[in-house]
Amino acid sequence: MDEVKAIKDDHRSVDPAAVEMLRIADREGYSNVWERYEKQQPQCSYGQLGTCCRICSMGPCRIDPFGEGPTHGVCGATADTIVARNLARMAAVGSSSHSDHGRKVALLLRAVANGTNTDYHITDPDKLMAVAARLGIPTAGRQQMEIAADVAKVAIDCFGNQEEEPLVFLQKYMPVKRFERLKELERALYESTGAKTGFLPRGIDREAVDILHRTHFGCDHDPLSLVAQSIRCSLSDGWGGSLIATELQDILLGTPTIKSVKANLGVLEEESVNVVVHGHEPILSAKVAEMALSAENRQAAEAVGAKRVNVVGLCCTGNEVLLRQGVGMAGNESHSELAIMTGAVDAMVVDVQCIFPALADLASCFHTKFITTSEQAKIPGALHIQFDEHHADVIASRIIKTAIDAFPNRNKGRVYIPKHTATAVVGFTVEEILKALGGTLQPLIDLIVSGTIKGVAGIVGCNNVKVQQDHFHRVLTTELLKRDILVIGTGCWAVAAAKAGLMDLSAQKLAGPGLKAVCKQLGIPPVLHMGSCVDCSRMLNLAGAIADHLKVDISDLPLVGSAPEWTTEKAVAIGAYFVGSGIPVHLWPLPPILGGPAVTKILTQDAKDLLGGWFFVEEDPVAAADQMERIVMQRRSALGI
Amino acid sequence: MDEVKAIKDDHRSVDPAAVEMLRIADREGYSNVWERYEKQQPQCSYGQLGTCCRICSMGPCRIDPFGEGPTHGVCGATADTIVARNLARMAAVGSSSHSDHGRKVALLLRAVANGTNTDYHITDPDKLMAVAARLGIPTAGRQQMEIAADVAKVAIDCFGNQEEEPLVFLQKYMPVKRFERLKELERALYESTGAKTGFLPRGIDREAVDILHRTHFGCDHDPLSLVAQSIRCSLSDGWGGSLIATELQDILLGTPTIKSVKANLGVLEEESVNVVVHGHEPILSAKVAEMALSAENRQAAEAVGAKRVNVVGLCCTGNEVLLRQGVGMAGNESHSELAIMTGAVDAMVVDVQCIFPALADLASCFHTKFITTSEQAKIPGALHIQFDEHHADVIASRIIKTAIDAFPNRNKGRVYIPKHTATAVVGFTVEEILKALGGTLQPLIDLIVSGTIKGVAGIVGCNNVKVQQDHFHRVLTTELLKRDILVIGTGCWAVAAAKAGLMDLSAQKLAGPGLKAVCKQLGIPPVLHMGSCVDCSRMLNLAGAIADHLKVDISDLPLVGSAPEWTTEKAVAIGAYFVGSGIPVHLWPLPPILGGPAVTKILTQDAKDLLGGWFFVEEDPVAAADQMERIVMQRRSALGI
Repeated sequence: MDEVKAIKDDHRSVDPAAVEMLRIADREGYSNVWERYEKQQPQCSYGQLGTCCRICSMGPCRIDPFGEGPTHGVCGATADTIVARNLARMAAVGSSSHSDHGRKVALLLRAVANGTNTDYHITDPDKLMAVAARLGIPTAGRQQMEIAADVAKVAIDCFGNQEEEPLVFLQKYMPVKRFERLKELERALYESTGAKTGFLPRGIDREAVDILHRTHFGCDHDPLSLVAQSIRCSLSDGWGGSLIATELQDILLGTPTIKSVKANLGVLEEESVNVVVHGHEPILSAKVAEMALSAENRQAAEAVGAKRVNVVGLCCTGNEVLLRQGVGMAGNESHSELAIMTGAVDAMVVDVQCIFPALADLASCFHTKFITTSEQAKIPGALHIQFDEHHADVIASRIIKTAIDAFPNRNKGRVYIPKHTATAVVGFTVEEILKALGGTLQPLIDLIVSGTIKGVAGIVGCNNVKVQQDHFHRVLTTELLKRDILVIGTGCWAVAAAKAGLMDLSAQKLAGPGLKAVCKQLGIPPVLHMGSCVDCSRMLNLAGAIADHLKVDISDLPLVGSAPEWTTEKAVAIGAYFVGSGIPVHLWPLPPILGGPAVTKILTQDAKDLLGGWFFVEEDPVAAADQMERIVMQRRSALGI
Repeated sequence: MDEVKAIKDDHRSVDPAAVEMLRIADREGYSNVWERYEKQQPQCSYGQLGTCCRICSMGPCRIDPFGEGPTHGVCGATADTIVARNLARMAAVGSSSHSDHGRKVALLLRAVANGTNTDYHITDPDKLMAVAARLGIPTAGRQQMEIAADVAKVAIDCFGNQEEEPLVFLQKYMPVKRFERLKELERALYESTGAKTGFLPRGIDREAVDILHRTHFGCDHDPLSLVAQSIRCSLSDGWGGSLIATELQDILLGTPTIKSVKANLGVLEEESVNVVVHGHEPILSAKVAEMALSAENRQAAEAVGAKRVNVVGLCCTGNEVLLRQGVGMAGNESHSELAIMTGAVDAMVVDVQCIFPALADLASCFHTKFITTSEQAKIPGALHIQFDEHHADVIASRIIKTAIDAFPNRNKGRVYIPKHTATAVVGFTVEEILKALGGTLQPLIDLIVSGTIKGVAGIVGCNNVKVQQDHFHRVLTTELLKRDILVIGTGCWAVAAAKAGLMDLSAQKLAGPGLKAVCKQLGIPPVLHMGSCVDCSRMLNLAGAIADHLKVDISDLPLVGSAPEWTTEKAVAIGAYFVGSGIPVHLWPLPPILGGPAVTKILTQDAKDLLGGWFFVEEDPVAAADQMERIVMQRRSALGI
């Protein structure tokens, strides 16, 4: 088996395409993320445990969690305060990243609705109507663009809201019982502590700013209060910024539908101009994929001797074009450098988030044009082509032309494309799942009640050099399937699953008997690709729909989450909004909290009672699957099923 | 001279009251900020140089700026990227802290205007009219409350603004030439780099969130772009959040007027119930000072054998009540623990920012009630009395009563109040300066043109254990005066100057001949207290008024700034908005940027051309004064005066 061989071959990755490329990297001496990680050893233990504080200039301070050295920072902060503040800032950054993405989509929808942008359109009017209905916006007898303008306005107002009321998207999308539980929790904590503690977010931007304020020197030092605000801010991401990004992207670019695609570096084509889109925001990448197909660009490609312009994706902007446009998926985060090392990438176009700055240097070793496009993500050494959604067609075409112009400079002697690809059936949005089930969630619920499917695991994750690439993703997913747990997910985990063939129909055979039968009957794989990491909102939405359908809270359902191989602050925000929504979340590698015993206890124990969701860490993927199954079974038994 | 003796006596502080208290601390073994600082030695050099990155969980990474060890983080980030991202986050936190303060004031003004809050009132209707006029809000024939509601609405909208237009307060307050220069800089950079680079802030909250997004893993790696956004976000503080806080507090609580007050620990009274207000938001502390005077509370104090309830201030909320209500000033940041050690503080009431969490433990060694009041600043071990501005009178009274109840538990044998106080003439708002000058800036401008006053230095600063308390503040200020440079300022620097007697009329003798004559003629000290650190907006306003009056840019004026003994991220934001407004700013101690040569060059050199303001560092206060004088003289000569 390829996988086993790869594991033996290389401690860095289980992906055979990666292993092949790493041999080239080793031979040629290309700098890469694994090599830079080795050079950074040993890494600072204070930082890893969360007990390093750089918040004021009397520091930096550090607390040795083993009791050697000082027990307090210069100001008197304890290890728990330091850990909690650092964690809160991570949640603020993660939430802000997703939400800022959502903001741009909302502003674009408004521009389309009022006619100031003609490069984009309402691609999915049904979704527009559904979102409007959800928000309570009248639709009967109204023009599409009027409705779109109202939807955009509600969304935009969620970012700037200065009132105490929870943000409207959350009010309208969060299941009733969860909303009530959080409200009740606020009340109960006020009663028991005498202090206001908010869990329901007000404005999306405001909750992040609130964290910045309360983590300023000499403000909030209470672990519970800091964790609570981290959850609140993260909920403004999950039920706010990310949700807005997903819903409004669907309106503008189309709601993804089920389709069969190819994944791994083998999607690069030796004969074609290869354009890799990398990052997170499909507003650009969808246009690049679209413009690649224009007659003019096709002809231009042919004129330089290429078969065609082949746009492929990486990371989450890749997931977006994969799900909507069926574009090939070159890989997840750790594949980004490997893609350039093939020598076959004529342009790598990036928008925002999770882009190694090292790509600029690496691309300069090849003919590859490394193109940045966002003012929020400039990278020294890159060619900057400023994206502007009001001139999207023109700019996307210019990017394609830049790639075409680079193609003749390709050094054919250095081209090596590993032949690996896997087939993946993807595009399982809530809408598509409902369609597959015949328009109602009842069949899925029946299958869960009967135990044919024990429960559902929602996974998101990155790649992280501290874990062999994709190993945790593959083993954990396979183990869950075996246990008749349906696996849904997004992000770089979804790319890993696709590359591993776990989203192919043939993966049905890996599932336990119940799940296998269901998948065969419905003609779906046992692992469902729901989108990019911003689309974790789709998982929330699905969970919420089931909860509302059964008139229970999400925390009652046999659901469990995981963020294996997580890397980013966005993952912290996602984990926190899952937990705040009542879903237990597994994490590996360790989050930087273990230096704070009170914080660790709140997140791993107290949160169970407070929120019905909590974090747990587990290094071994099989043991993690065991634990996730245990949670699912406990919840089943609490439900009496 | 007391000062010289103190310097010899103790390396920790030049303040004789502090030196006396530190002897007690040493004798009794009370933990304090200096002792904890010693215990934290040696501090991490990576952190001090800014080259420690904890942004993703593949880290922490660190770059040795001396070239020993790896040159890149795991993702490929360089030392400059790491330094610039860390700096940007400091600016975001600092701005958010000030601005979140401003938000609460704006929301309170709205509540007062619409009658939902009756605990506060429009105390200064003239200021309301002035602000309304500045904002272009019609006033003729309108009800006061209608106008107040409009002012509040414009302010609140500045926080949530989602449009591309610069925020309204900035548009209406920033001098014309500065606004034009920043607009032109944006245009020029777009032309030369092909990338959007914004300096004019849009929404206050949005600019902070933008920084969080662009400093997320794999986004902005360009030092200039990151510094530019730091300036933009900070400008949203100086000309936005802080300005709103100042202007609207003046409307609600009254614009400070010139008055004579006492400063230093000697303001504590052995015979009285002593309530120390500490933090930053006067919405609470003004009420505490007010309710202390109620007949009921006076009687309650007498009933326990106290002379009266003596409210005194610490830090910036202290500055607020000092300037508006003439309340005694117990000290700056490093005095907070020393105040409790007197054994004479019956309650210390804190709101937000710059509150050592160590105060809770220390208070527990005494009868002192340590009371937290804000949900954004909870401290383990404190008594939490949740503040709510809609029940401000009741809550402030409850706080006073808690202090009165504590008074009988005072251990008189442990009480030691150092007898030091200095007289300070304070309250030099822009309005009061104009009044002193006869209603126009022309006399001040004439004095500057004639060289009687060479220029103006604006100082803000904290206390920082890395510098002997108040030493830099005192020496720098005295040196500037000698050079006929008028010194204005805020924050903990202002408290230091007050304690040192530099705001007493007798300090006129320390000034150079020109400045001395002017101060004698006007009957003012040569060092002007303009308020709390959020009131640095008053300095901007004064600079802006002079610039507009002369139809020049702020960067043309003989103005210079300094943040000696700075500690907090707020100081970074203040420094950055001074620089972005065209004012050169001195800093000591070192900011954590020296590990990034490109960042250091941008801030200390390139910013001169780009913005007309820049940073410089200098450890020696006399040399700093020399450099500040040099800048003033260069600007004079450029103006041909």
